[in-house]
Amino acid sequence: MTYSYVSHLYCPKCENIYSTKEVNQLCECGSPLLVSYKINELKEAFKREDLVGRAPDLWRYHELLPVEDPQYVATLGEGMTPMLYMNKIGKQMGIPNLFMKDEGLIPSGSFKSRGAAVGVSKAKELGVGKLAMPTNGNAGAAWSLYCAQADINSTIVMPTDAPEITRKECVAAGADLYLVDGLIGDAGKIVGQAVNDYNLYDASTLKEPYRIEGKKTMGLEIAEQFNWEVPDVILYPTGGGVGLIGIDKAFHELQELGWIDEGKMPRLVAVQSEGCAPIVKAWEEGKSSADPWEDASTVAFGINVAKALGDFLILDAIRKTNGCAISVSDDDILKELSIVAATEGAFVCPEGAAAFVAARKLREQNWIKHDERVVVLNTGAGIKYPNTIEVDVPILQKGEKL
Amino acid sequence: MTYSYVSHLYCPKCENIYSTKEVNQLCECGSPLLVSYKINELKEAFKREDLVGRAPDLWRYHELLPVEDPQYVATLGEGMTPMLYMNKIGKQMGIPNLFMKDEGLIPSGSFKSRGAAVGVSKAKELGVGKLAMPTNGNAGAAWSLYCAQADINSTIVMPTDAPEITRKECVAAGADLYLVDGLIGDAGKIVGQAVNDYNLYDASTLKEPYRIEGKKTMGLEIAEQFNWEVPDVILYPTGGGVGLIGIDKAFHELQELGWIDEGKMPRLVAVQSEGCAPIVKAWEEGKSSADPWEDASTVAFGINVAKALGDFLILDAIRKTNGCAISVSDDDILKELSIVAATEGAFVCPEGAAAFVAARKLREQNWIKHDERVVVLNTGAGIKYPNTIEVDVPILQKGEKL
Repeated sequence: MTYSYVSHLYCPKCENIYSTKEVNQLCECGSPLLVSYKINELKEAFKREDLVGRAPDLWRYHELLPVEDPQYVATLGEGMTPMLYMNKIGKQMGIPNLFMKDEGLIPSGSFKSRGAAVGVSKAKELGVGKLAMPTNGNAGAAWSLYCAQADINSTIVMPTDAPEITRKECVAAGADLYLVDGLIGDAGKIVGQAVNDYNLYDASTLKEPYRIEGKKTMGLEIAEQFNWEVPDVILYPTGGGVGLIGIDKAFHELQELGWIDEGKMPRLVAVQSEGCAPIVKAWEEGKSSADPWEDASTVAFGINVAKALGDFLILDAIRKTNGCAISVSDDDILKELSIVAATEGAFVCPEGAAAFVAARKLREQNWIKHDERVVVLNTGAGIKYPNTIEVDVPILQKGEKL
Repeated sequence: MTYSYVSHLYCPKCENIYSTKEVNQLCECGSPLLVSYKINELKEAFKREDLVGRAPDLWRYHELLPVEDPQYVATLGEGMTPMLYMNKIGKQMGIPNLFMKDEGLIPSGSFKSRGAAVGVSKAKELGVGKLAMPTNGNAGAAWSLYCAQADINSTIVMPTDAPEITRKECVAAGADLYLVDGLIGDAGKIVGQAVNDYNLYDASTLKEPYRIEGKKTMGLEIAEQFNWEVPDVILYPTGGGVGLIGIDKAFHELQELGWIDEGKMPRLVAVQSEGCAPIVKAWEEGKSSADPWEDASTVAFGINVAKALGDFLILDAIRKTNGCAISVSDDDILKELSIVAATEGAFVCPEGAAAFVAARKLREQNWIKHDERVVVLNTGAGIKYPNTIEVDVPILQKGEKL
């Protein structure tokens, strides 16, 4: 009857241990903290078969999530998004086993809702009343909405260039929203100051340990959707990289539980835009952390992150899984977005389109082999990005003929 | 191993019978046609338990859907949308058992994808190569996208006032899109002419019999999500009314199968806007069909339908279930939309907000009783309607303080 088998927090850099019973943000060494579970107990108590018949949302994995009392769960039905077989575009690319996990079918139309659902629920359990965060739009929208449900006051700071609909979501949810004439790093500095000045919970990417647990559920779902046989390659559009770190963490936990084979990990691919590719640069230079990217700019605004706090974790996950990092151009992103919509009927976000471009390029380079099973993560709904499509169509008068 | 137990088409007015093996549109009497299944065979072959372990999309009910060969299924993962417990707003309204079925979590962010998935798949099975339809936006977007996947050419005509994002979706999908300076009825006339001139499949609301089968799955899911005990009241924002007719049809089929109790049908409520309430007027006047509404106009554009072809079916379903029809004001819709977002964190569409207003009013009138289980259908994602929320927030410069 134990809802969560959460154990403690640990620092992946200095191995310090912290409690999940009280608010903890970064390690004293400055590193993000990760959540550990009682794997040995879980091995006995939690079987794959237990999932059969559970509701198709991410709380089906509650034993592997950090919220201990279900009364604190804030939910809008997030999770178990479709794993779509991309038959037509896959053939076109020479990847007949191409799949897309469509994170557009989730509250607020973006995968950020996973991190928000788990992060907000845990914050509520910890007694948090007020939080603040910088965002490129979608995370702020998601956190605002879940905070509304949890009666937590949210302060959100986003660049003026963030997708306009995300402002509307924050305001609808009753968040205290501020725009900043700058990038997410500038929003982060403003939030850092406010956190100090007003004693707020800092919900910035990786500055609280629980968002990643929500994102982890993408990895759990991928494994379950392939009947516990992991795919060969996963392509992930990478800004802050929490999803990639989370997916990697998920597969390790599933291996420890014995639910998936220890012998095989999917090769993880960090996809960035040529206009903001700090992880790709660090990867190519063989570094273990990334330098800040100057003058970051891309149409895939969600991955316009000049410096990721978890860069070392991203690079580590890519390296250990024999993955890679690759950048693609904005032109190719917009072209691919239209190709995917017109070919498969899937209107993806530019970040998702970037991952399709990367799949195409890696297949051309034969880094992806013809018979491999490949998953592209579409991190959000195309409908949040109206500016990716230009419309120039006839306007008829009543009674006119086609 | 039979995928579908579809039997034939029948006319609910004159009882004529038609085949599902060839293209049929309206009955020769002008009425929409409905799909009939081999219920007796199904009773033997299909049990509620068969659903356990099936993927959480609407194709889990394939036996009760009209597509006979799964190779024709066009899918983007639609269906099994969340049934959310609206704890806080329910208490506020005096309906502690208030639920929302959130059709925002579906491809293209609107429940129209259900009808499109099944309608397009069946059209493909019937050999259709080109279709046309008028739309208030969302249906056209959904049909365009599924047609792209099915390699069917689509011609879409929508009012210039339709939500702007839906134009983008049609264009992204490669549809032939036309705007008309008028209402959906004017778009319908243009499509009618084009259907004749160019010999197109007419995918207008209820002019093909299969869209309703897709919408029907909302009723199947509601029953399954409540563990085969139907709720007391379902509130449905009503334009063309296909969803309401479909939900009613679903419950009748489930009764025939013996999956739900014959004794109880949910009371179905058709919710309209005061600016376009032909069904409400007919209902109040005790008529069995509705007169066209003059100068139709509402912020809930999806239900801005002055004359519904299935009006007699809607009114019949309301009457037989002891339901009702009710109209609400645009002011109340926009207020409720903000209340729902700020209270529950759910950013609903204006049509969904209308149904919440109706629940509130019907509770005040004691038509809904305190202990009743009530389901509001939110037919789409709020993110498709940015204009419902006004944003006026501070813009900070880099380094500024909150």
